[in-house]
Amino acid sequence: MTPDLIRAAAGRMAGHVRRTPLLNAPLLDRLAGRQVLVKAECLQLTGSFKARGGWAAVSALDEAARARGVIAYSSGNHAQGVALAAARHGAPCVIVMPSDAPAVKIANTRAYGAEVVLYDRATEDRDAIGTALASQRGLTLVKPFDDPQVIAGQGTVGLELAEQAAKAGVARAPVLIPCGGGGLAAGTALALEGTGLRVHTVEPAGFDDTARSLATGARQRNPSATGSICDAILTPAPGELTFPILQRLAGPGYSVTDDEVLQAMALAFAHLRIVLEPGGAVALAAALCRPDLPETVIAVASGGNVDPATFAAALDRPA
Amino acid sequence: MTPDLIRAAAGRMAGHVRRTPLLNAPLLDRLAGRQVLVKAECLQLTGSFKARGGWAAVSALDEAARARGVIAYSSGNHAQGVALAAARHGAPCVIVMPSDAPAVKIANTRAYGAEVVLYDRATEDRDAIGTALASQRGLTLVKPFDDPQVIAGQGTVGLELAEQAAKAGVARAPVLIPCGGGGLAAGTALALEGTGLRVHTVEPAGFDDTARSLATGARQRNPSATGSICDAILTPAPGELTFPILQRLAGPGYSVTDDEVLQAMALAFAHLRIVLEPGGAVALAAALCRPDLPETVIAVASGGNVDPATFAAALDRPA
Repeated sequence: MTPDLIRAAAGRMAGHVRRTPLLNAPLLDRLAGRQVLVKAECLQLTGSFKARGGWAAVSALDEAARARGVIAYSSGNHAQGVALAAARHGAPCVIVMPSDAPAVKIANTRAYGAEVVLYDRATEDRDAIGTALASQRGLTLVKPFDDPQVIAGQGTVGLELAEQAAKAGVARAPVLIPCGGGGLAAGTALALEGTGLRVHTVEPAGFDDTARSLATGARQRNPSATGSICDAILTPAPGELTFPILQRLAGPGYSVTDDEVLQAMALAFAHLRIVLEPGGAVALAAALCRPDLPETVIAVASGGNVDPATFAAALDRPA
Repeated sequence: MTPDLIRAAAGRMAGHVRRTPLLNAPLLDRLAGRQVLVKAECLQLTGSFKARGGWAAVSALDEAARARGVIAYSSGNHAQGVALAAARHGAPCVIVMPSDAPAVKIANTRAYGAEVVLYDRATEDRDAIGTALASQRGLTLVKPFDDPQVIAGQGTVGLELAEQAAKAGVARAPVLIPCGGGGLAAGTALALEGTGLRVHTVEPAGFDDTARSLATGARQRNPSATGSICDAILTPAPGELTFPILQRLAGPGYSVTDDEVLQAMALAFAHLRIVLEPGGAVALAAALCRPDLPETVIAVASGGNVDPATFAAALDRPA
């Protein structure tokens, strides 16, 4: 992984993937007690930064591989990012999704043009289904984070941030990033290497595998797979490719409670007028709640694919 | 009113008022049956385009007038736009608001640094209070739309749109704009004069004074002052300055139902991940619902200051 790979991905993405704005709000700064700059990746195509990694991976394939197509496992944002990139490249795309995934996510993934193959979580083996399909059709697997092109694609967030922070007069600040497998955090950290902007991962409390891995120097796993509202970032452990990058360039990692996440969603609604999903709001939650941060922080708001009931519950939360 | 005034306002606003993004979403286009480009002014500072007009007006004052301060009547977005601009210019600011305005709007206007003077709608005369204060303190009144500098400030939306549409490869398209007094529509129409982008006002059904005025060639009034969820744009009649501009450069005007507005808010939530207030969503509603529009339309989403209960109700609306 080198910064050149990120710049090359940015070149392939220009005009196809959105440059997202860096937002702020005076009244949010007052509540936080500091200046909070928010990189609004919820405004990205498909509603999350995953459109970047999907585009970078699909656009990096040679013509023959692209014509055979791609496959991904995901019930969420990665599915949509890969599906849109494949459609725009004219590449066949299969997304393997659990049959109990939210109907709207299945419908949206299909609407982006992907062939959705459903499997039963209880009785079927996802990897067996995917491997069989991939070998029958010659599909290329696009992994959600442990893939150099995917990390490079997510790293384009960092290239944009470096420019946007400089324009805002911010030379030094922590960059707080929602972290599941660590693709966004690792890519961004690589893009920001040598600047005054240092990446810190943010995870849900109880699912802080990356924070513990950074603290101990070895990859740690989460004790459970479910139990937080932040579904998009409940990855079991840091990636094999992403963790060494984070170890060299990022941390310490932070964590936030579900209640802090809901509060961040409500404040983003009221003061930034953006829609965040729980997993996309953890970095903003840390920026708003942690007393030990400096007077200016950057938070990446990584996604906004949330069902109406969850969002309404966040707004209904007592202030 | 000349385009020079708009360019001058843009020069004074650079670095202080946000250049808002032009958003789109493939799945929203599919639902609409056309390409819909959304100028997201809900992402503007203070949550609406009114921050532009406020900045343009306050920054145009000479130093002595600025030192004496400004005054505005508003319970909503204009209040916040003027208050923020005044605070950033170090100008004293009085906002005259009805005592039954939503508590959050009063609190936010104060938080931007304005002195809020409350009056009782039933027993007190707003204009008498404002005129007395203005003459005692030498305050300059910043009107919500019938002011050349305010129209010029709102017109900077048009300057940005011309560039953004060109970059998106759109040379000809209707530009749908939420319309109360017509400041945003008139300023934008002036900025777009001579391009292939033509402004059409959009109003709530039953409050389509501008559409009827454009159709009849004379300023018409609305029969009632309340009765739509689109509180931000329920102005009694087109402005004296704004209407002749609209007559020359814009129309015909459109109108949408409250139900179409709620649907547009829900679709903006789901596909663009932005928060729109009802009055800010009328143009998007027209872009999504009207069968008689061409294959590419631009809609300005003019504001996002909405209380959580109203927003949750829009999301809860049957699809």
